[in-house]
Amino acid sequence: MPYFISGVTADHTDLIARTPAEFKSLNDIDVLTRHRVLEVDTANRKIKVADLVSGREFYDHYTRLLISTGAHAFLPELPGSSLEGVFTLRKLADSISIRQFVRSRRVASAVIVGAGPIGIEMCESFRSLGIEVSLVESAEQVMPFMAADLAALVQDRLEREGVACYLGQAVEGIEGGPGGAVRAVRTASSTIDAEVVLLGLGVRPSSELASAAGIELGVKGAIRVDRRMATSAPGVFAAVDCATAINTISGLETWMPLGSTARKQGRLAGETMFGADTGFPGIQGTSVVKCFDITVGRTGLDSSESSAAGFQPAVVDIAAPSLHDYYPGGGTIHLKVIADGPSGRILGAQTVGAMHSVAEKRLDVLAVAVHAGLTAEDLQYLDLAYAPPYSTAVDAVGIAGNLMAGKILAPGCSCDAFGLD
Amino acid sequence: MPYFISGVTADHTDLIARTPAEFKSLNDIDVLTRHRVLEVDTANRKIKVADLVSGREFYDHYTRLLISTGAHAFLPELPGSSLEGVFTLRKLADSISIRQFVRSRRVASAVIVGAGPIGIEMCESFRSLGIEVSLVESAEQVMPFMAADLAALVQDRLEREGVACYLGQAVEGIEGGPGGAVRAVRTASSTIDAEVVLLGLGVRPSSELASAAGIELGVKGAIRVDRRMATSAPGVFAAVDCATAINTISGLETWMPLGSTARKQGRLAGETMFGADTGFPGIQGTSVVKCFDITVGRTGLDSSESSAAGFQPAVVDIAAPSLHDYYPGGGTIHLKVIADGPSGRILGAQTVGAMHSVAEKRLDVLAVAVHAGLTAEDLQYLDLAYAPPYSTAVDAVGIAGNLMAGKILAPGCSCDAFGLD
Repeated sequence: MPYFISGVTADHTDLIARTPAEFKSLNDIDVLTRHRVLEVDTANRKIKVADLVSGREFYDHYTRLLISTGAHAFLPELPGSSLEGVFTLRKLADSISIRQFVRSRRVASAVIVGAGPIGIEMCESFRSLGIEVSLVESAEQVMPFMAADLAALVQDRLEREGVACYLGQAVEGIEGGPGGAVRAVRTASSTIDAEVVLLGLGVRPSSELASAAGIELGVKGAIRVDRRMATSAPGVFAAVDCATAINTISGLETWMPLGSTARKQGRLAGETMFGADTGFPGIQGTSVVKCFDITVGRTGLDSSESSAAGFQPAVVDIAAPSLHDYYPGGGTIHLKVIADGPSGRILGAQTVGAMHSVAEKRLDVLAVAVHAGLTAEDLQYLDLAYAPPYSTAVDAVGIAGNLMAGKILAPGCSCDAFGLD
Repeated sequence: MPYFISGVTADHTDLIARTPAEFKSLNDIDVLTRHRVLEVDTANRKIKVADLVSGREFYDHYTRLLISTGAHAFLPELPGSSLEGVFTLRKLADSISIRQFVRSRRVASAVIVGAGPIGIEMCESFRSLGIEVSLVESAEQVMPFMAADLAALVQDRLEREGVACYLGQAVEGIEGGPGGAVRAVRTASSTIDAEVVLLGLGVRPSSELASAAGIELGVKGAIRVDRRMATSAPGVFAAVDCATAINTISGLETWMPLGSTARKQGRLAGETMFGADTGFPGIQGTSVVKCFDITVGRTGLDSSESSAAGFQPAVVDIAAPSLHDYYPGGGTIHLKVIADGPSGRILGAQTVGAMHSVAEKRLDVLAVAVHAGLTAEDLQYLDLAYAPPYSTAVDAVGIAGNLMAGKILAPGCSCDAFGLD
């Protein structure tokens, strides 16, 4: 949606994967739009439905029910948050409203509250429309889910693109102007002019319907599901943004709604609801964000999560060229790899690199390593694809593996001996 | 070196990773250039050395010896192969000679014999210099190590770039002109004009020194080494292009000299020669080649190699977009994944895709999957990094996993149900 707002994606209909008409013609599935399920009666396997157009209410029944109510933008109690020009960005309608608003009003200044993925993507989106952007974040760094040293690289990139960063500042209120529209955002120490405000403060699971039906909730209020995506109620399944998942590394229940997970859970629920004997192994928290021309991503656990999960984390940090210097293009890949000291098992990784350094390739390689429970020694000997247009002969991942193996296998040694060629 | 010949890499010194002077200053290592080892006396741990400048011969001794004699270009018995303008491309000096020759002679036409990686890279190199290029290959397809359907895509790309492909034609001779320089290449059915000829017919291990010393050779005449890179002679190790390796999937001894393997073997030999208790697990044959603006690569076993190794290969072929259609850029990734039917274990993969489709990312992901012994079901649930600038929500690898799991887990089902959406 940030790319639709900036015009990279031309039309909002491009973002609709499948229309109700296509569901009907392709799959013979009836999609009832403008209907709301008011209640789920799990004892009698019935649902109460309201037709939002006619106002009529009726009951329907199910053998198997999938609750896929998704997530909604978190909107805190904040003075002025309902002023004209204050938006969240979660639904397609939000993006249409924002695009229309900034274009029709020729908006010149924006405040983005929250420096998470949506906030970061919207910085680029608004800047590409020529809008002055201020980014306000209560944490002391942008992208709080990234390590501070890597987040500092992202902040630097944002600032070089003209984004004013207000870190360690919680929003206390939003001020309106004479016409009733938003005018400024106020923190404890700053008042920042804004003709549009985007609140990117994260999402919450839309689990009210399930909760009211007595279905068990889990972490962060998401609907608790087992590996088959089954809830606590017989015949009722949940998937996609409203359901929990297991973190495959820590083994803990988690909730992290992402499009890639949604697709897997949705497919799997479709299989298990019809009797397939399979299960969703869980997630490891892989995510990536484009921030102007850099790539920012992580997978697995960070150092403190590793400690909390009972591991003894060892961390290596490298800044490696993506290509040999004799081949043009490429860039520096900043890579942090976290492993368990005693076992050498790779627990997580984080990266920042220029788009043309293809840092996301190294991230995905490490995501598979984490999935498979590989060790630092494995990273040393992965047989990755090398040719000068694609990587160095020993890729960033291999360098990290060499360094990590040196740290883990010979704690007393000088890691320089295992470093860049 | 193909990129130095075309001028992408400006200077040949850019290709020298470390000079003898740097070895001395950085590591206090004496590098004796213009010296040749004539004999290795493994019983007495002595070597006989010739100073090629003075002609003097002398003996030196060793506690541990590393034989790293590399590989040399294969030059078949071929009439006319020593004519002026006929080259192989293995050593840095070769590339300097070729670059000098084609520039000083303003060469207008080239025949490249052999459609392997070097031949393919040289097609691009010569075409970028405005040279007409004919590619002659005895196999019925370009890139014989790739599956025929994917190789056909490469051939199509070559032909659209103006490369004339002569397939299924072995070179029978090279003809010289009046001035003594090369004039044409002759096959059974064609005579192709050429002002320069590049013979890209593969390489052979330079194992004569080891063989003469009674050291055991292995497959294809490479020096047989164990996991520590130790040869059959006490205290003698071998690594880098002249040494064997184990194929980690088939378990068979193999020889496949690649820069990425060389770096790992060299480092490891350095460790084990000084007592480290570690070992090289082997290779799985991952390689990638840039062919104009497409990427061509493979990892692991192909279908027939899988059968030969005792597996029951199941193959899925997909052509998936690298990005959702609403995000610009991206391209089609052609991906072939080979798995063992009964176990679901991923045995190999091959890919062809436009450079901007980042097919090499999917290849590396699958290379790690092969390394780790992952199954088709694992591919379905890998937690890879998704955002619109980087991939589709279900990436090509996940689609292949879905298809493969459908094939393997439910052979009777329609695979369409698991395909692209």
